[in-house]
Amino acid sequence: MISTKLKNAIRDIPDFPKPGIIFKDITPILKDAGLCSEVIEAFVLEMKGDKIDVIAGIESRGFLFGLMLANRLQIPFVPIRKQGKLPAKTIQEPCELEYGSAILELHQDALIAGQRVMIHDDLLATGGTVSAATRLVQKIGGVVAGYSFVISLDFLNGKEKLRGDSENIITLASY
Amino acid sequence: MISTKLKNAIRDIPDFPKPGIIFKDITPILKDAGLCSEVIEAFVLEMKGDKIDVIAGIESRGFLFGLMLANRLQIPFVPIRKQGKLPAKTIQEPCELEYGSAILELHQDALIAGQRVMIHDDLLATGGTVSAATRLVQKIGGVVAGYSFVISLDFLNGKEKLRGDSENIITLASY
Repeated sequence: MISTKLKNAIRDIPDFPKPGIIFKDITPILKDAGLCSEVIEAFVLEMKGDKIDVIAGIESRGFLFGLMLANRLQIPFVPIRKQGKLPAKTIQEPCELEYGSAILELHQDALIAGQRVMIHDDLLATGGTVSAATRLVQKIGGVVAGYSFVISLDFLNGKEKLRGDSENIITLASY
Repeated sequence: MISTKLKNAIRDIPDFPKPGIIFKDITPILKDAGLCSEVIEAFVLEMKGDKIDVIAGIESRGFLFGLMLANRLQIPFVPIRKQGKLPAKTIQEPCELEYGSAILELHQDALIAGQRVMIHDDLLATGGTVSAATRLVQKIGGVVAGYSFVISLDFLNGKEKLRGDSENIITLASY
């Protein structure tokens, strides 16, 4: 089962990036090509044939499986990045992070109005970043039609924050 | 031909991130799933069956095609990141960038000694970042057996800087 395989691969790193935080390290997953393929196939299976037009991946670790998933579905990938990284005209949204805050950006021309977007990141924590990503997509006319995460830290209640925008929240390894 | 297709897709963004710099924006490539697939197949073709054990991708844009290429070859992917991002024990190398400087990190246990590593990024400029990545790989016993870039800015002479470490430098769109 993918959840068990992922949990066996993920490393707990205590006190990173701050004392008291136990960080979920996905780098052992990335070393296991077969498991990476299984991650993508598990996402596709969970999507149950939903019509998704675009995958939007959040910098940096959302770029990893985000582009692979878009390619597997043969649909466009658009990057959501931290302030100052995207070169063309952008829109901005502030976001509260589990530790700190930031501004996220999306290219103004990243989407065509009405496109159904799945927002992807490696990990769902409090949902602050993903909520900002949701607002970015909606601001330029996209429809948030789902979310996909490799890992969910359920005890931080991120899913509750996202459900108002889409009930379609795919997570493969929940803690 | 892949080079022409890529050049037609890549956008020139003047004065980003600083006045006088013309930035090569790859986001239109990411929107074209067919072209993304062609990028990966072009890399594989250019590798001509070389024995590569690991793809090391440089944050952030090297994560995009880096993981896809590793998955296509069914070999491990390891991330090279900016300081403070990798959670387990790391080694560090300073690097000079086209605009500014930074410290790159690699997990100490990212490689097994003797593994043949292809370092990947989206774009080769002066080669400062990639040289630092090369030193990181070599420090933990990896053999740099090649480089792959979607774009090369040949006028910045990055290839000359890398040739002492590996002659195997794959670029798909050169300027």
